[in-house]
Order: sequence, then C-alpha cells, then structure tokens
Amino acid sequence: MRKKFLAEFMGTAFLVMIVFGSGIMGMNLPQGNVAIALMANSLATGAGLFVLIQCLGPISGAHMNPVVSLAEFGWKRLGKKELLLYWLAQFVGATCGVFLTHVMFKLPLLQISLQERYGFNLWVSEIVATVGLICVVALAGRKHVEFAPLSVAAYITSAYWFTSSTAFANPAITVARMLTDTFCGMAPSGVLMFIAAQLIGTIVAIVSLKRLN
Amino acid sequence: MRKKFLAEFMGTAFLVMIVFGSGIMGMNLPQGNVAIALMANSLATGAGLFVLIQCLGPISGAHMNPVVSLAEFGWKRLGKKELLLYWLAQFVGATCGVFLTHVMFKLPLLQISLQERYGFNLWVSEIVATVGLICVVALAGRKHVEFAPLSVAAYITSAYWFTSSTAFANPAITVARMLTDTFCGMAPSGVLMFIAAQLIGTIVAIVSLKRLN
Amino acid sequence: MRKKFLAEFMGTAFLVMIVFGSGIMGMNLPQGNVAIALMANSLATGAGLFVLIQCLGPISGAHMNPVVSLAEFGWKRLGKKELLLYWLAQFVGATCGVFLTHVMFKLPLLQISLQERYGFNLWVSEIVATVGLICVVALAGRKHVEFAPLSVAAYITSAYWFTSSTAFANPAITVARMLTDTFCGMAPSGVLMFIAAQLIGTIVAIVSLKRLN
Amino acid sequence: MRKKFLAEFMGTAFLVMIVFGSGIMGMNLPQGNVAIALMANSLATGAGLFVLIQCLGPISGAHMNPVVSLAEFGWKRLGKKELLLYWLAQFVGATCGVFLTHVMFKLPLLQISLQERYGFNLWVSEIVATVGLICVVALAGRKHVEFAPLSVAAYITSAYWFTSSTAFANPAITVARMLTDTFCGMAPSGVLMFIAAQLIGTIVAIVSLKRLN
Repeated sequence: MRKKFLAEFMGTAFLVMIVFGSGIMGMNLPQGNVAIALMANSLATGAGLFVLIQCLGPISGAHMNPVVSLAEFGWKRLGKKELLLYWLAQFVGATCGVFLTHVMFKLPLLQISLQERYGFNLWVSEIVATVGLICVVALAGRKHVEFAPLSVAAYITSAYWFTSSTAFANPAITVARMLTDTFCGMAPSGVLMFIAAQLIGTIVAIVSLKRLN
Repeated sequence: MRKKFLAEFMGTAFLVMIVFGSGIMGMNLPQGNVAIALMANSLATGAGLFVLIQCLGPISGAHMNPVVSLAEFGWKRLGKKELLLYWLAQFVGATCGVFLTHVMFKLPLLQISLQERYGFNLWVSEIVATVGLICVVALAGRKHVEFAPLSVAAYITSAYWFTSSTAFANPAITVARMLTDTFCGMAPSGVLMFIAAQLIGTIVAIVSLKRLN
Repeated sequence: MRKKFLAEFMGTAFLVMIVFGSGIMGMNLPQGNVAIALMANSLATGAGLFVLIQCLGPISGAHMNPVVSLAEFGWKRLGKKELLLYWLAQFVGATCGVFLTHVMFKLPLLQISLQERYGFNLWVSEIVATVGLICVVALAGRKHVEFAPLSVAAYITSAYWFTSSTAFANPAITVARMLTDTFCGMAPSGVLMFIAAQLIGTIVAIVSLKRLN
Repeated sequence: MRKKFLAEFMGTAFLVMIVFGSGIMGMNLPQGNVAIALMANSLATGAGLFVLIQCLGPISGAHMNPVVSLAEFGWKRLGKKELLLYWLAQFVGATCGVFLTHVMFKLPLLQISLQERYGFNLWVSEIVATVGLICVVALAGRKHVEFAPLSVAAYITSAYWFTSSTAFANPAITVARMLTDTFCGMAPSGVLMFIAAQLIGTIVAIVSLKRLN
C-alpha cells in the first residue's frame, strides 16, 4: 500500500507540473500566446500522461484522478480504505506539484487564481469530458491492454481541444488550479460546480457502460 | 445488436464533437485562426479517433462512418439489416453530436452553414481521401492487428493536410456539417456531390483491393 | 509480383500526395507560411508514412523509395529484376502523385520548380538524412518488429527539422519535386547532386551497418 | 564492446544533431521564432529519440546520456570499465554531432555560446527533469517492454514544455551546448551547475525508486 500511495502522490505531482508548467511555458515564450499555450498543454499532457500511466500503472493503476479512483471503487476494484488513501495522495500530490511548478518558473509560491470559469456550457463540457474519460478507462484495455496508456493520453490531448472547458475532468487538478494564477488557473468560485459536473459525468459513464459492456 | 447500435451512436456523436469542437476552439482562441484550427482539427481528430476505435472496436467495429459500414457489407462482414441499423445510429449520433457541441460552446442549437464547398477539385479530393480510408480499413490490421486503430487515426490526421477538401470521407459527418455554421461547416448545396464522391471512392477502393489482396 | 508492383506504385503516389499536398495546404491557408507548411509537412508525412508502411509492408515491403530498394538488393532481399520493377513503380507512382496533387489543389498539371536547392551544406544534409534512414530501415525491426513502421515514420518527422535540406532522402520524390513549383518543389539544376548524395548516404549506411550488426 | 561503443557514439551524435538542428531550423525559417523552435525541438527530439532507442536499444541499451549510464552502473547492469567507455563514446559523439550540425546549416564550425542559463529555479528544473527521466528509464519497460522507447521519447517531448530549463537532463548534451551559439546553446558559465543538478536528480531518482519498486 505504501508503494501505491507513493506512486499516486508522485504521479499526481508530476501531472500537475506537466499541465501547469507547459501552460506557463506556452505563455512565457517571447512569442507565447493562448494558442501556443493550448498546443503546448495538449501535447505535453498527452505525452506526459502516457509516460506516467506506462510507468506507474503496474504499481498503483496510475489513477492520479479522484473520479477514476471513485469509478474503480464503483467497479469493486478498489476498497473503501484504499479509495480514501488514493484521494489523499492525489490531493497532496497535486498541491506539491503546484509549488514545484512555481519554484521552477520563479513565481510566488502561494497564489490564488483570478480566472473566472463559470457557466452552464462549461459544466456540460465537464460532464462530456468526464463521461468520455471514464469510458476510455473502462474500455481501452479490453482487447489490446498494452495500448491502454496511449488511449487515455490521446483522449486527453483530444479533449483539450473539443471541449469548451479544456477538459479538466479531474477534481484533484481542479482544486490545484485555484492555487496558480497562471494559464491553467481557475478562480475558487467556479471549483465546486466543476467538481459537481465531474461527479455527474462519472455516474453517467458508469450507467452507460452497463449497457455497452 | 443493441450494444453495437449504442456504440455506433455514441462513437459518431463523440467523433462529431471532436471534429467540430476542435475547429471551433482553434478559431475562438484570442490568437485563433485557420492555421491553428486546422492544426487543432488534425491533432484532436487523430488522437480522438484512435481512442474511439480502440474502445469501441471490440464492440461494434467502430465504423462511425456509413461508407465504412458499406464496405464491410460489401465484404460480407455485415448483414443488410445490420447495415441499415449502423447507418441509423451513425446519422442520429452525428446530429446529437452537433447539438452537444453547440451547447458546450454556447452557440445557437440550430444552424445552417453558409460555407460553400463546391468544385471538381474538391470532389477529386474526396474520392482520393475515401479510397485511402477504405484501403487503410482493409489493410491496416493484416499483420499487426493491434496497430489498426492507430493506422486509421494517423491516416485521417494526414489527410486533413494533403487533400484540398480536408478529407471529410464520411457521409454522416458530411450531413452533420450542414448543421453548423462554424469552422467545419458546409453549405447544403455541396453535400450531395461530396457524398457521391465518397461513394465513388468506396467503389474504387473495393475494386483496387481485389488486385492488392 | 503484380501485387508488389501495384503496392509500390500506389504507395509512392500517396506518399507524394502527402508530402506535396500538405506543403501546399500549409502555404495556402489564410495564415499559411513556411513555418506552418513545415509543421504540416512533418506531421502529415509522419502520420501518412506510418499508415503506408503498416498497410503495404506485408505486400511489397513498402519501400516507396529507390535507395531503400537498392539497400534491400544489397542485402540480397530483392532480386535484380525485382529491383528494376520496384524502381519503375516508384518513379511512375511519384509522377502520378504529382499530377493528382495538382488536380486536387486546382493547379496547372505541368510545372517546373524554380526553387534552387544547391550547395555543399545541403549535400552533407542529404548524406546524413539517408544514412539515418537506411540504418533505421535495417535496425528498427530487430527486436520489436511491430514498431518498425512507426520508427521509419518518426525518423522522417524528425529529419524534416534537423537537416537543412528537410531530408528528401528519396530519389523518386526528388525527381518528382522538379515537377511542382510549390512548397516542396526543387529546380532541376539541383536534382543530380541530391541523388548523388542519397546514393553516398546509402553506401555509408550499408558499410556502417556491417560494424553495428 | 566495439559495437556498443559505436552505437553510443552514433546515437549521441544523431541526438545532438536532432536537438540542435531542429532548434536552428525553427529559428531560421522566414517566420521562425522561439515558439516555433521549441515546438520543433520537442517534436523532432521526441520522434528522433524514439527511433534511436528503438534501433540502438538492442545493441547498447541506447543510453546516449552519461547519467543514464551512471544509473545503469548503480543498478549493476553496467561494469566500471564499460561505464567509462560509454561516457567516452557519448562525449565524443556529442562533439561530432555539433560539428556536423554546423556543417549542415552552413555555420562556423567552432562556436562558444553566449546564452546565459543560470539560476536556482533552473537548477531545480534540471533536478526535476532528471528525476523524471531516470524513473522513466527504470519503470517504463516493467510491464510492456515494447513501449519503453516510446515512453522515454514522450517524457522528453513533455519535459521540454513543463520544465523552465527545457530539460537538458544529459551531461553530454549539456557540454555540447557550450559549443554552439544557436537556439540550444548555453554559455560555459552555467554548465557545471547544470551537471551538478543532473547528478543530484539521478541520486534522488535512484533513492526514490528503491521505495517504489
């Protein structure tokens, strides 16, 4: 269990560094702008997520996402105590990831984002993004399990672009976004509704999967 | 059969969201433009299509495209009744995908595209794009079947750029393009000729494959 | 043999369409420019080449390149008569690919490129590019043969950027470049020296491989 | 051993050409700029590194990086004499790669970079980048070894964007960066601290891995 906890902790910390760091880099470059930052975000997260799942999957399953752990709990592949420990590792890891990102880019350690992300269309977008993610987690390894890490990664690369919210789909990272006033930041006012949408998406996915599987 | 219908329905809806949503995102960004939108389109569709085929392939074959289903029917791998149900799922799914995309991006639900796409060179382009797609579907899994989803996805990523029509090569998505006046839209006047070109491409591919296989 | 000839013919025609078409698209877009065109070129060729090798590899080996066929001949995996037929299919296919590209993009069918590409540094670049390509063809499938198509594709994506000549490394496509006055074109005056450099690269690779293998 | 030496030599030379050449190309294009150059760098290095590991892995392990060889020595998978020969091949190969890059791009053979890269945040960034790299090398092949080359490559593509130092994480390439006053160059004054950071990262990774594995 200690190994699994460490894997989830390190994995989520790296995931946050990858998402937030690539966004900062894309904006900070002399010719940086939002289009470059989203391109950087989607490529770096796709590539990085693939590696994290490839490396940590055999240890902890490489969830790095509380709704993925929740779904695994719903499918009886994770016990209740494990679920809580996974969540702890993910939230603590995400917070450490924020701080490390700020150190690497020489930014104030403690920040609160001012970027408002609030609105019905964004919540629908988060539901769609999370339905897709949970379905991919459930289905991608059915036939050729060795391609499961690449599938989850490719889904997120794609979802950055096709959802209007850029597909957070991860409560730990959503909370961490409050703590950075950079490209990927999100003002605290929007966080609860995003997490609610992610939970709804998880439930919709679990129900849909019963009819598909 | 219900599972297959649901898989084709969900898959085509997601495919439309991926194609249209990424086009809208690429144009909507502060520095968005046609070059960014086509880059977004080709990356998001490539990544997304790979995931859809990886996840839904084992359930329904993951056609999400009426001419692919038609070719499978021609190769006697799909019955006549199944063909009609696949087509129904694909067209209904594509339409739902348009509406969901519009909700996510806070756009009017009902739209008709004004973007004219008409001309001999575009029809040749659609024939070439469809010949390639059907050949890839037939050949990609011959030796290393686990790479078939990646092959179809890579083909479409490539075809966005090397065909002048950006390779629709899919009658369900072509029809859905009438219903969105955004980057991927297409005025109704051009639809019939595009679908005719896609059917010609399918037939050319089936005939060529008899000599290759 | 007829199947192999057809596969090399179709493959080289598609390869030329992919390379030249994506270059034209990258320049033709409203915000198109050389940087976009090279990005389009490298992504579309990488993705497209992977698919072509994946699909046609089991039929003809998917050379689509006279120096690859020459190396296979040197390694005694291709007979002399086969070599000549492969070359014929490749040059004829490349020429057909040029014409189809021009039709798709509504350009004059017959063109001669005015783009000078001449100089010692470009020849060194072609030697390096070809040494790399032939080594990849020889080594990529040694341990995990299923990744060989992806390896050749990734090499070319990379070589577009790290060589000053953008890594033609293919006499059939080099000749075809004379016939298009678009992004990928090349004035006839430079062709012979490029092909000479590609032949030198092939020989250097074959000799080096004897020490590596 | 001669084969291994040659593989490390050629591999590191090509790696340097890929990293430095793509940076030069991204800056040299008519619309080239730092954003294009970093995109070029991350795509070309990702694609190229995958190919190098795929091709040379079966021969020498394809380290092409003194701290990777050091870690392999720490894990008793490389002898002391082999370690020194690997280091020699890597440093000599990197130097040859610089010269070949300069020839290909028609630049003065001998250069010293003036680009200052110095600061606590960059050293933290190099520690993070190297911890990640060594962990990936150790873990990526545990379950599906055939995906190990793709994992290392994807990690570097990602790390270009999420670290503020653009993830050198390689003492041989760090030294070679002194010798080129182009996009990837680095003034000699910063080299020692970068290498120190890379060594610290290697040790942190080896210690962490004992708890994960």
